[in-house]
Amino acid sequence: MRYALLAPGKRIRPFFVAESARLFDVAEIHALQAGAAIECVHCYSLVHDDLPAMDDDDLRRGRPTVHKAFDEATAILAGDALLTFAFEILSNKATHSDAAIRGELIAQLAQAAGKDGMAGGQMLDLQAESEKVADLGRIVTLQAMKTGALFRFAVNAGAVLGKAGAKERAALALYADHIGLAFQIADDILDVEASSATLGKTAGKDKVAGKATYVDLLGLDGAKAEAGKLVREAKDAMQLFGAKAEIFIAAADYVVSRRK
Amino acid sequence: MRYALLAPGKRIRPFFVAESARLFDVAEIHALQAGAAIECVHCYSLVHDDLPAMDDDDLRRGRPTVHKAFDEATAILAGDALLTFAFEILSNKATHSDAAIRGELIAQLAQAAGKDGMAGGQMLDLQAESEKVADLGRIVTLQAMKTGALFRFAVNAGAVLGKAGAKERAALALYADHIGLAFQIADDILDVEASSATLGKTAGKDKVAGKATYVDLLGLDGAKAEAGKLVREAKDAMQLFGAKAEIFIAAADYVVSRRK
Repeated sequence: MRYALLAPGKRIRPFFVAESARLFDVAEIHALQAGAAIECVHCYSLVHDDLPAMDDDDLRRGRPTVHKAFDEATAILAGDALLTFAFEILSNKATHSDAAIRGELIAQLAQAAGKDGMAGGQMLDLQAESEKVADLGRIVTLQAMKTGALFRFAVNAGAVLGKAGAKERAALALYADHIGLAFQIADDILDVEASSATLGKTAGKDKVAGKATYVDLLGLDGAKAEAGKLVREAKDAMQLFGAKAEIFIAAADYVVSRRK
Repeated sequence: MRYALLAPGKRIRPFFVAESARLFDVAEIHALQAGAAIECVHCYSLVHDDLPAMDDDDLRRGRPTVHKAFDEATAILAGDALLTFAFEILSNKATHSDAAIRGELIAQLAQAAGKDGMAGGQMLDLQAESEKVADLGRIVTLQAMKTGALFRFAVNAGAVLGKAGAKERAALALYADHIGLAFQIADDILDVEASSATLGKTAGKDKVAGKATYVDLLGLDGAKAEAGKLVREAKDAMQLFGAKAEIFIAAADYVVSRRK
């Protein structure tokens, strides 16, 4: 669990939890609680996705994947325990005494991670891979579930913790959905353009697996244009928060400019 | 998820949730919510435990295991999604409006299922198997985590839902711990005495895997005597509830008399 969770990573989901919490002047300890929980869920998904029966990957965050460093049984159980630990963290009333807010976060995290979110999206991804069907609508739906739902949870967490209004939540949701999609498109672009050494994971993997990527469907230039458009719209939505949204604007630019 | 969850099973954990809820006159819908959640957790653990990298079992509840009926990736994801679904169910405020009670159940379930409970116990079990060390203290600790923690959650759930006092909770905890252990000893006895057809899962599996069982450590007669003693003490503890505890007494007898 430690090997998977404390490996060098971008921590982009906890980052968004912390920054959205800052928009609503939420106590830092509450943001850390939600941020720790979402990172547990994200890391569990990496451990299970890397398993031989899934994406069968040897390298993650620049190190051997968990089933390579230990063994498959350990990887399965470490993933299971990390997922469970996320809910243990969120249900800790010593960290956050408001049971209604904790309950809303738990409900949202479970929906984002489960059959109608990340796990369901991963299943659709495996089916799409074996059927070799490339369809833009399908890949958008699939990615919205597989990676978008957890992303939206992260960006929305501060609004839940800060009991924000509907207008603020809608702006954050638009930002999250657009950035989540742009992030995925950027990943597909990086998978084509970057080396394994830079990525810290195996490059060119999607092509070998025969996965339909945004680059396949839109072309390299088309994918870059689409990511750029999504980022612009995401930044526009955040104007609502004025100067406080500065870091969200910078983060949006980072998503498409990052090299790994 | 449906294949794993709706397969014929004893539903012994939801049964204990329902019956402990009845002790404290809890609304049935609240018991059903907690019972559904614990069955999801139990079934997820069966799906993952049966995987080739874990116990590598082909038969469960009289049918092919999930990775045999579908494939390994589907089994991993169905397990992940069932575990997550348990927390989605428990966090549903439409089913139970009291966020503090829901929060306590979620915290207890996460602890019972996670690194210090079921998943941690399964890891210890795999380590014990590879080290071929047979030690009674170790196997008791291991089983208390692997199966006992979830059992205790089930028996205690009604007390949480019904806001029961410390004396009632202590009696239920003793009952749960003793019955949980007796259940496991009875499983080890059945693994030696029953056929695969009767069990609905592969019999004699533990011996082949070189697992240290209670039968190895205590002998067949010793294991039966120990299970009998635990059941008697469990029944004694439930005298506190008078005639209301009748079904707990019958369930305790069932645990050691069942043939599968």
